[in-house]
Amino acid sequence: MRYFLELAYQGTAYHGWQTQPNAHTVQAELEQALSTLLRRDTAVVASGRTDTGVHACQQFVHFDSDHPLSDRLLRSLNGILPSDVAVRHLYRVPDEAHARFDALERAYEYHLMPHKDPFAPHLSLHFSAPLDVAKMNQAAALLLSHEDFECFSRVKTDVTHFRCTVTAAHWDTEQEKLVFHISANRFLRGMVRAIVGTLLAVGTGKQEVADIQHILQSKDRRQAGHAAPPEGLFLTRVSYPTGLLTLIA
Amino acid sequence: MRYFLELAYQGTAYHGWQTQPNAHTVQAELEQALSTLLRRDTAVVASGRTDTGVHACQQFVHFDSDHPLSDRLLRSLNGILPSDVAVRHLYRVPDEAHARFDALERAYEYHLMPHKDPFAPHLSLHFSAPLDVAKMNQAAALLLSHEDFECFSRVKTDVTHFRCTVTAAHWDTEQEKLVFHISANRFLRGMVRAIVGTLLAVGTGKQEVADIQHILQSKDRRQAGHAAPPEGLFLTRVSYPTGLLTLIA
Repeated sequence: MRYFLELAYQGTAYHGWQTQPNAHTVQAELEQALSTLLRRDTAVVASGRTDTGVHACQQFVHFDSDHPLSDRLLRSLNGILPSDVAVRHLYRVPDEAHARFDALERAYEYHLMPHKDPFAPHLSLHFSAPLDVAKMNQAAALLLSHEDFECFSRVKTDVTHFRCTVTAAHWDTEQEKLVFHISANRFLRGMVRAIVGTLLAVGTGKQEVADIQHILQSKDRRQAGHAAPPEGLFLTRVSYPTGLLTLIA
Repeated sequence: MRYFLELAYQGTAYHGWQTQPNAHTVQAELEQALSTLLRRDTAVVASGRTDTGVHACQQFVHFDSDHPLSDRLLRSLNGILPSDVAVRHLYRVPDEAHARFDALERAYEYHLMPHKDPFAPHLSLHFSAPLDVAKMNQAAALLLSHEDFECFSRVKTDVTHFRCTVTAAHWDTEQEKLVFHISANRFLRGMVRAIVGTLLAVGTGKQEVADIQHILQSKDRRQAGHAAPPEGLFLTRVSYPTGLLTLIA
């Protein structure tokens, strides 16, 4: 029987999502907890990986179980998982459902904080320089009418093409924070942080709005801005086809 | 010349506010940073101490400087203080002003979170049992008409009397959290956590609202509930007479 788990985590203490030898990862913590509770080695497949220090408000994984599972699994998992990882919901799915291949859209947020925040030092980028948010939004809007995002992809990558459909890209002020929202059917590795770094260059006047077109057309990572640091980045939403997930708890 | 500094800190990593031998405290961090920047040993006096693991959204200290200070001090302090301590404002005050003796009122909040919060595991008490908030508010209201709070004071204390004027005491739902607000002219050591522990006993049905009167009249700490743990407690406001503080930055 196949299940989806919905979870959230603060990435600060982890070497990213994906299990690697001798590294502290969220996937390894979750697989260890699930294997303990299900009493057999249990592997999980996520909607996508997140990098070192990147957070997730909503991440999904699929895994298989020999016996039917109930809401007790959530309580037990939250009891044995570390305090910076929480499971939110458990869903029953068809046996062929796949957390990565069935995801229709992902959404990320990038959080900027204009002053030092002692209560969440690793949950935003502390950025106190003045920013021209109107220009950053003009530049962001150009992403919506573009298809090839090779200029924002890590050079070392195993993807076969760089086409993404960006469905939202805008900056909003939320309480004291400035938050970038971006959604797409897929994201390339390092893409959101490269886009944020480039838009910050526009916001501080180092780049013009019009430069974004040239950067996109260049397909050259070196033309885009520096990657923004990981602490401001959150995976916030993963969408699946209606009816694929049946909520258990 | 005497100054007030307004600061905020997450208490998780500290053995409380007050400097002690061989202990990591917020006061020691601040005094070390100030002494470095002012190039002379500089002691600070706070509005009051906070215990191990307790946070402050607004704490005040006074200190003296030989030369006039500007907003540059705030930027420099935030640069060298740890990421979980932030200075917010600098004020010029009369030479006899005192951060502790001149404070008219203090306010605290205690935060309860009904589910696991991976982004702020040390900034609230994770409390998932059902609570009768109406009864907790009835019990809290009884604090407003009482004067002697010895029943909520630590037994080991150096105060000469236990009289406090409680000016506010109520529970509110704020987003997902349940938050207790309490203000008074002064607080005894351990008082807020003992009150919260007692009100939680009312909320879970272990104590009746009417028991609060007996507890207050007993003047016996053993009659009150267990102290609630420190991670949910925030010092949120300290009030001074109008005109005492002149904002510099």
